[in-house]
Amino acid sequence: MSKCFNEKLRAAAAKSGSLVCVGLDPDLNQFPESLKGLPRGKQIEAFNRAIIEATSDLVCAYKPNFAFYLQYGIEGIEALLATRAAIPADIPVLLDCKVGDVDSTAAAYARAFFEEFGFDAITVSPYMGEDSLAPFFNYADKGVISICKTSNLGSGDLQDQLQQTTSAPLYETVASRAVEWNAKYPASIGLVVGATFPEQLARIREIAAELPILLPGVGTQAGDVEASVRAGVDSSFGGLMVSSSRGITYASQGADFADAARAKVLALKATVNAARG
Amino acid sequence: MSKCFNEKLRAAAAKSGSLVCVGLDPDLNQFPESLKGLPRGKQIEAFNRAIIEATSDLVCAYKPNFAFYLQYGIEGIEALLATRAAIPADIPVLLDCKVGDVDSTAAAYARAFFEEFGFDAITVSPYMGEDSLAPFFNYADKGVISICKTSNLGSGDLQDQLQQTTSAPLYETVASRAVEWNAKYPASIGLVVGATFPEQLARIREIAAELPILLPGVGTQAGDVEASVRAGVDSSFGGLMVSSSRGITYASQGADFADAARAKVLALKATVNAARG
Repeated sequence: MSKCFNEKLRAAAAKSGSLVCVGLDPDLNQFPESLKGLPRGKQIEAFNRAIIEATSDLVCAYKPNFAFYLQYGIEGIEALLATRAAIPADIPVLLDCKVGDVDSTAAAYARAFFEEFGFDAITVSPYMGEDSLAPFFNYADKGVISICKTSNLGSGDLQDQLQQTTSAPLYETVASRAVEWNAKYPASIGLVVGATFPEQLARIREIAAELPILLPGVGTQAGDVEASVRAGVDSSFGGLMVSSSRGITYASQGADFADAARAKVLALKATVNAARG
Repeated sequence: MSKCFNEKLRAAAAKSGSLVCVGLDPDLNQFPESLKGLPRGKQIEAFNRAIIEATSDLVCAYKPNFAFYLQYGIEGIEALLATRAAIPADIPVLLDCKVGDVDSTAAAYARAFFEEFGFDAITVSPYMGEDSLAPFFNYADKGVISICKTSNLGSGDLQDQLQQTTSAPLYETVASRAVEWNAKYPASIGLVVGATFPEQLARIREIAAELPILLPGVGTQAGDVEASVRAGVDSSFGGLMVSSSRGITYASQGADFADAARAKVLALKATVNAARG
């Protein structure tokens, strides 16, 4: 079965020679002085455009997180749409929104994020089960990346709970189900696994050999990039999106923020490529 | 510990004599002909205003679901804000958005939904654990309602998985944790339990005697209202928000839609009140 999002991701990774995914999470407090005169939506747009221009030859994807736009209200959403439009058409854009709801509601989210806003992929939460995700899975040209073992400390609260039937943690159940869903539905299905848990990532890669994995937590959250890349890489193009947001975009809060972001992406790209061997 | 959202909810339930929560989920295809000449955002606003005017003396809360506004882009969000502003100040408004993300992201969602948009409560997803929800839990005047055992058929996929340590399903772990969180944090914490599962609801009410429970699935999803209300009612004001959306707002697609909605709310209110005894 052709998986359009996977192909677009693979092509972007090949063209850039990079598995780095840059997170675009606006925080006006960390923007340079030079932007401060603009309305807040225009600040976000100008900031993101500069980051995109400075890094688009070095990344396999961009990942705006919905929350960081919503916090600025309507202006923030307008800036998100302008940001999406500013990203070159051959680079996939993944909206990090972690949605999951009953099927009629999921269908409305799918219309919003895939049709109205034009994103290539979204993140989803699996807690409500297969029928809550099926409306996303039925978009053949889109990617649907389910949270599995997340990067935060509290991820163990539910995700590490051992299941009676398998004696394995819940996140392994999610990884197994995602493999089944990827075979059953047309969309490209993937998993979010935090770079803070390389051993768990290795086990998830065993279960889900072919699924793309979004790997957040390498920057501010101080995950182990090299161990995670070794544990998470697949047998072909890499199968990883190594995602860093604040660690890249706010490397400098001065007028040189875009150059500083480029330097951080170059360094992360080199670290990842050395580890994938 | 004073729980402001719970008090507001209790006061609204007492004033209206009702545990009915009306879901406001716009679907332009189901709006009456009389609205069709307006831009889509204005249609949503006019429709919701009419529903609110026809039902506000009969409800304990309103619950717009974020997805149904997002599907109409910026216009949809503007209509959501106008809808929020049109609801009388003494009736709590719960945004159904089921978010959950790492703490810095959760803080951005909290700023968006509680501060920028001014909602009284939101729904959240517990899959990422306590630290992902703490930024919401720290708002003393707000309600945070975690999905627990949802109304859809696929809710069993993860939520019913038996846990090795307790031999109980995952949703009971979530209910237990929510009780701990409600004691630990200032916000009013509650649970979403679908009206399609009255036996599971009875068990959850045993675990979480004092938490408000949002009960969706009584309308289109055909849950058992009477059994669910008997199973879910608490020892005081009711502790339930019995939520119906499409079954009320689209009872008629003619010019009498607001009157038809009022009739549906009156009938649901009577059914609920008979069952709570």
